[in-house]
Amino acid sequence: MPPNPDHGRMNFALPPDLVSYLSDLDTFIAQKIAPLQARDDNERFFDHRREHSRTNWDAGGLPRDDWEDLLSQSREIADEAGFYRFCLPTEYGGQNGGNLWMAVIRIHLAKKGLGLFNDLQNEHSVVGNFSDVLMVREFGSPEQKEEFIKGRLEGNRVLAFGLTEPSHGSDATHMFTHAEKTTRDGVQGWVINGGKMWISGMHRATHCILFARTHGKPGDAIGITAFFVPRDAKGFVIESYEWTFNMPTDHATLTFTDVFVPHSAVLGQIGHGLPIAQTFVHENRLRQAASSLGAAMYCIEESIKYARKRKPFGEELSTNQAIQFPIVELSTQAEMLRLLILKTATEMDGMTQKEIERDLGDKVSMCNFWGNRLCTQAADRAIQIHDLNTSTDIIVSGIPLSSDSPLLTSPGRYRITEGSEEIQQRKIAAYLFGYVGPRKAELSKL
Amino acid sequence: MPPNPDHGRMNFALPPDLVSYLSDLDTFIAQKIAPLQARDDNERFFDHRREHSRTNWDAGGLPRDDWEDLLSQSREIADEAGFYRFCLPTEYGGQNGGNLWMAVIRIHLAKKGLGLFNDLQNEHSVVGNFSDVLMVREFGSPEQKEEFIKGRLEGNRVLAFGLTEPSHGSDATHMFTHAEKTTRDGVQGWVINGGKMWISGMHRATHCILFARTHGKPGDAIGITAFFVPRDAKGFVIESYEWTFNMPTDHATLTFTDVFVPHSAVLGQIGHGLPIAQTFVHENRLRQAASSLGAAMYCIEESIKYARKRKPFGEELSTNQAIQFPIVELSTQAEMLRLLILKTATEMDGMTQKEIERDLGDKVSMCNFWGNRLCTQAADRAIQIHDLNTSTDIIVSGIPLSSDSPLLTSPGRYRITEGSEEIQQRKIAAYLFGYVGPRKAELSKL
Amino acid sequence: MPPNPDHGRMNFALPPDLVSYLSDLDTFIAQKIAPLQARDDNERFFDHRREHSRTNWDAGGLPRDDWEDLLSQSREIADEAGFYRFCLPTEYGGQNGGNLWMAVIRIHLAKKGLGLFNDLQNEHSVVGNFSDVLMVREFGSPEQKEEFIKGRLEGNRVLAFGLTEPSHGSDATHMFTHAEKTTRDGVQGWVINGGKMWISGMHRATHCILFARTHGKPGDAIGITAFFVPRDAKGFVIESYEWTFNMPTDHATLTFTDVFVPHSAVLGQIGHGLPIAQTFVHENRLRQAASSLGAAMYCIEESIKYARKRKPFGEELSTNQAIQFPIVELSTQAEMLRLLILKTATEMDGMTQKEIERDLGDKVSMCNFWGNRLCTQAADRAIQIHDLNTSTDIIVSGIPLSSDSPLLTSPGRYRITEGSEEIQQRKIAAYLFGYVGPRKAELSKL
Amino acid sequence: MPPNPDHGRMNFALPPDLVSYLSDLDTFIAQKIAPLQARDDNERFFDHRREHSRTNWDAGGLPRDDWEDLLSQSREIADEAGFYRFCLPTEYGGQNGGNLWMAVIRIHLAKKGLGLFNDLQNEHSVVGNFSDVLMVREFGSPEQKEEFIKGRLEGNRVLAFGLTEPSHGSDATHMFTHAEKTTRDGVQGWVINGGKMWISGMHRATHCILFARTHGKPGDAIGITAFFVPRDAKGFVIESYEWTFNMPTDHATLTFTDVFVPHSAVLGQIGHGLPIAQTFVHENRLRQAASSLGAAMYCIEESIKYARKRKPFGEELSTNQAIQFPIVELSTQAEMLRLLILKTATEMDGMTQKEIERDLGDKVSMCNFWGNRLCTQAADRAIQIHDLNTSTDIIVSGIPLSSDSPLLTSPGRYRITEGSEEIQQRKIAAYLFGYVGPRKAELSKL
Repeated sequence: MPPNPDHGRMNFALPPDLVSYLSDLDTFIAQKIAPLQARDDNERFFDHRREHSRTNWDAGGLPRDDWEDLLSQSREIADEAGFYRFCLPTEYGGQNGGNLWMAVIRIHLAKKGLGLFNDLQNEHSVVGNFSDVLMVREFGSPEQKEEFIKGRLEGNRVLAFGLTEPSHGSDATHMFTHAEKTTRDGVQGWVINGGKMWISGMHRATHCILFARTHGKPGDAIGITAFFVPRDAKGFVIESYEWTFNMPTDHATLTFTDVFVPHSAVLGQIGHGLPIAQTFVHENRLRQAASSLGAAMYCIEESIKYARKRKPFGEELSTNQAIQFPIVELSTQAEMLRLLILKTATEMDGMTQKEIERDLGDKVSMCNFWGNRLCTQAADRAIQIHDLNTSTDIIVSGIPLSSDSPLLTSPGRYRITEGSEEIQQRKIAAYLFGYVGPRKAELSKL
Repeated sequence: MPPNPDHGRMNFALPPDLVSYLSDLDTFIAQKIAPLQARDDNERFFDHRREHSRTNWDAGGLPRDDWEDLLSQSREIADEAGFYRFCLPTEYGGQNGGNLWMAVIRIHLAKKGLGLFNDLQNEHSVVGNFSDVLMVREFGSPEQKEEFIKGRLEGNRVLAFGLTEPSHGSDATHMFTHAEKTTRDGVQGWVINGGKMWISGMHRATHCILFARTHGKPGDAIGITAFFVPRDAKGFVIESYEWTFNMPTDHATLTFTDVFVPHSAVLGQIGHGLPIAQTFVHENRLRQAASSLGAAMYCIEESIKYARKRKPFGEELSTNQAIQFPIVELSTQAEMLRLLILKTATEMDGMTQKEIERDLGDKVSMCNFWGNRLCTQAADRAIQIHDLNTSTDIIVSGIPLSSDSPLLTSPGRYRITEGSEEIQQRKIAAYLFGYVGPRKAELSKL
Repeated sequence: MPPNPDHGRMNFALPPDLVSYLSDLDTFIAQKIAPLQARDDNERFFDHRREHSRTNWDAGGLPRDDWEDLLSQSREIADEAGFYRFCLPTEYGGQNGGNLWMAVIRIHLAKKGLGLFNDLQNEHSVVGNFSDVLMVREFGSPEQKEEFIKGRLEGNRVLAFGLTEPSHGSDATHMFTHAEKTTRDGVQGWVINGGKMWISGMHRATHCILFARTHGKPGDAIGITAFFVPRDAKGFVIESYEWTFNMPTDHATLTFTDVFVPHSAVLGQIGHGLPIAQTFVHENRLRQAASSLGAAMYCIEESIKYARKRKPFGEELSTNQAIQFPIVELSTQAEMLRLLILKTATEMDGMTQKEIERDLGDKVSMCNFWGNRLCTQAADRAIQIHDLNTSTDIIVSGIPLSSDSPLLTSPGRYRITEGSEEIQQRKIAAYLFGYVGPRKAELSKL
Repeated sequence: MPPNPDHGRMNFALPPDLVSYLSDLDTFIAQKIAPLQARDDNERFFDHRREHSRTNWDAGGLPRDDWEDLLSQSREIADEAGFYRFCLPTEYGGQNGGNLWMAVIRIHLAKKGLGLFNDLQNEHSVVGNFSDVLMVREFGSPEQKEEFIKGRLEGNRVLAFGLTEPSHGSDATHMFTHAEKTTRDGVQGWVINGGKMWISGMHRATHCILFARTHGKPGDAIGITAFFVPRDAKGFVIESYEWTFNMPTDHATLTFTDVFVPHSAVLGQIGHGLPIAQTFVHENRLRQAASSLGAAMYCIEESIKYARKRKPFGEELSTNQAIQFPIVELSTQAEMLRLLILKTATEMDGMTQKEIERDLGDKVSMCNFWGNRLCTQAADRAIQIHDLNTSTDIIVSGIPLSSDSPLLTSPGRYRITEGSEEIQQRKIAAYLFGYVGPRKAELSKL
């Protein structure tokens, strides 16, 4: 009995042009990227040897050049084919992709598994992220845009993002790095002292967007300023690279000792650097959630196939409830989470940054923490299911039990980099219990 | 930066006419049902005294008449106001509501908590369920429709659904009750022997739709036939009523000893009764999932309010992470599950029964088992949070710690009545691993 | 290869005299208590009808007299047989049982299921608890011992324990009830004002041991005094009884309005009542943990037997991993928890109250919260397993799905009454992280 | 009130001579092993560089020689000091340690963290395991004992254990490798064909104890025979080494093509090899459980210290319930599991192999699966707690976030190597539900 035709309906299907875009992307990957991956034993960067192939153990554990060159090459191909700049505004050669489309693309690519087309270990993808470009576009002077956006897209400017410090935890208002106004050699500017940690990409960056306190006291939201600091500035030292579960490292520890920058190095308004740092936090969290979901779906799918294929005593492994039920649990979550991500992305697309923060911050954090946890659990389960009958099938089926499994460790990383699970939960709780957000007034009256 | 206007978008907002319908429903409840509940100490049926007020302990634990009369009265009011028959086809005075609208209404009502407008303990609601009517409409003869649909809506026919038996578990093909063709007093018909258990509503029913094996052997899907058996048929005995966590009982245990019915009592085709029994299994499972979700949301909301209001040592209870984080977990699930229910309902609205079974059975089961479990967990958490500081607030705030908490026990019941959690998971697994459903061919080739 | 005979060994076997005591207890129950339970339809107090049989719905939900009289009768039989006073000192006719033996006995009795010999709903047991006697023995004057210990054992004094209030939460130092020195009719004494809630046994008590602030301010540990207040004191009113999941209620809400007691009513030192209240907190928590463990073991055992017996489609239910694995999880926990309870009890037996608080408080709380949670989970699982194939076996096998399942609700109660799970975890954390306890100095230096 | 002195008591304290032995072991490690670890940058094998320092990436991922030489050196020192052979019988220079003492030692060493004294990654320890020696002692001929026990202890015989195959899963009776009687060059013997996988230590072994079917059919317990096959036998090929999460690898994949061995190579009785393979399965599982527990305790302790030390915003991290409560859960489990391990070890010490299998197999599996899972969870939580405020403290405090964290990956390995979690649970279930073990008769009658 079809329902009343006069009743309003809903529609949960992906828009047809997006479905078609995913198909084009698949074709492009199959025709242009997969052959490059298959060439010259480039598979060594993706199979069980990949941690070793990517890591220059004796140079601080940094990525090897041949590995990063291959990534660059694939990005250039994707740029020529029109995919790489998808999320950029049209003025920079992009298509102004938006959050919904980006989320669907991130899920789609991560669900395909690991490859030269997409690699969660270092956020490489044929469809690029450009938070740095968007940040300069939003807050930069015309000169800064000219230098850093144009330069970035042409490849002669590379920006690192210098916010985190060893001891301030998740609350950047307690940062220790500080800058004072000064004049050096007749040039008005700032002298910076302090240190940063876990700064990604510094080994190839030409500049660091550095956040430092210029006035106010620890805990003040106002008083933090952003600076462009060139890599070769005097007093700017890369002390070390931090080794993690997930090698190679590109997590630099930096110190700044009497580093001078001219006033033109200031990004945005003096003392208002923190909002710059937080501009794309929601976009990044959602994008990460989408990638985690995709990776979880990959693990689920591989587990299903393996459990059907594997017949330890003549009977399919998948006939065991101990195999079936955990996959049912994971799969149900993946179905549900996918919808929350798509809904949240859709709503973000119609809101300003300020509205997103006020009305949608809890939903973004829900997507993020659930996605990252789900992915870790799905990877853990996939390994457990494959291990029940240890075999080379494990490698063949795409979950290489190497020391650098992107399945295990990247989501693990995700559970930290955009705010740990606990930080996300704290944020959601603040909305739910009305300490911030739309229910603040209502619940405070209780 | 708003996304590319040429890109297709999605829309997750409820249709405006549905939002408006919910508002009308709220107004109706406030104006017509709430006053009736407030009258004549009718609150005794809903506050901490409700188990005792509803139960006739000394008459087998059946519902008391004044309780069931009050329910009837509220349904009549709702029928006059045009709400009660919402899901029925227009030919029977309904609005042909459909699965999406019904799901949204079920969530909405359960989220309001417990009251004369909606009570999960016995599936009473001002917006009715009519599985029996729809079943007769689909499979009945013109005479049966005349008698049982018209009679049902006028109140002189009440149908019970007689499928479950004590020992066949969840697989009705192993049922023991059987019927043989016979002629009695010159009338062609059937003689039925066997027994049924957990038959709801039998104490007020005029007829039981009884399922019995007429040919084939245990385990055969074919060979089960449905009969209308009048309550006063000779040999039809209500042996007892089963007491449960959730009193009053209306779960009768029945025996049939040489019960004769004429051939006109057969519903549908001989031997094809099982599909009749299963006709609305997906609709029922989804409706139940929606009610469970609504009840979970109620528990979450009450917990949030209580934790803000309660200040055990001058500080709000809600400042504790041990209070916050479990609510964050539950709330995230509620957000996600809501979308999966709405999506599944929307898809069901565009499909035939056969298509639903083939392509959507796993999603329905996902909604069902997750919803019922979520509800139990939310109720458990609500009780735990309220209990942290035992107080009369518990009753005031709508989670009466009485011996018949609908919060605790109804969802518990839900975890059984439409197929236990394990049964749902088994079904989902069958789809996921390709033993049934759309991936059957693909995954069997592995 | 047997190990080196010179090496010291351990011994985890129960002492033989304790094993033999359990056997004597079983014999006594079989010969003296079981027949009484079987007589005069006394089974109505234990089968599915028990909530109704025990509850006087129309008198505030209090226990019926015939129910409490039957309990008294069984206790008298047990006293004559020498079991009832087991834990009391020999001077009061007991055997000075100690914590280890009491824990083993509590586990043993609860593991036998529900009966007139032991009922967790109201802590009735043929082997009694006597916290009140021990409290008066420890802190009372000779006159008080004469009146309240002798009177209690002879049955003409019944004490309720009046500590909890509606709004101070788990921290009694914030209590609102207060007493001031006064002289009335020439008698020096105290006038008490305030209120108490959740006071068990008040309906049959002759006196309430009431805790009230006599000096100091909210939050001070010192300044709370204990008083014997007779039930018939002027101004002492039982306002109501709180209905819970677990009927009948014996949880009174009390008010005290200008209630006068003479100075001789003071128990212990003025201002030092709080340590009196806390004297047996560890003993009670451990005893409760033992009962919870026993009940969990009962649920596990019933589930195992049912799953072996039940053959829904000709195959034993227990062949399903979805049945097996949850029982494996529960059973492993029961094995482990049993040892922690026995070890903790053994260590308590060799320590003073002060040493227990300093060195063992975390272990006691570990036993308590894990035990109570395990019991709830085991009951939940038992119900789920039995429900998979709803059947009368459920009642037959001893887990009656009645509205007053001791399996479900008593442990639920346990999760509150001696400090909620969260309170226990907070306490354990304080020891683990060195905020109190033996590691305080070491960890504070970090 | 101390308990009745006539009552039998229990004793859960470690025997004093064992406590004293642990202390001697600590002294030895501090004086002899720690200095060696501190020398010549040997720390590189244990700090964040250790995966790279240990792995010869370009030689199949095998352990580097300097790494394995260092391990040998430490074992020699331990042998001289009288610790290494602790578990061996006195006839071979050991002390016949027994299961209880070995379990306590394993817990103690793993609890100290990672070092040259004990390394779970490859089961290296200053107190050695000697399953191979005990196996030859139990089943070998006098000549075999002379060659393989004496040779092993002198260092000129090294044995690998060749049971597992790529596709038979956990049931070795389905192995594919087979041997036929033959005469070659006048010597009676056997010709072996087949393959093995995940064979540890093969890269340094002189012989493989190879299990092959000599008669019977797949699934038969009888018909599998054990052979000593020299590494240089013709047709015996090491095909590859499998890379895992946990590098370096020492997991060889072997093939056997017409490999001839003389009759004297047979270990034990022909056709009765399977019991040989299973001889020490319980001892190994328990030892592994003990190591897992120790590692879990290490993670818990490090987390506690870090959370006290770390003050992100001036307040200790450990004041958060989201930090405290998970540690409370883990710590409670560690306390409980420790007792079950000690009890099981104590009971094993008084039983024959046959009795252990019949009466204790479920307890051993309980220890094993719970221990391995607990360890994984404790490591995961330790990482999560440390990550909340990413910092160099992570490395300093002994949980180096390197790509080869023994905390994360070794227990992960444990969840596989002695039978996966699922295999353990299946085994426990078989006992609990009476399919095997002491309750078989009782429960089969239901």
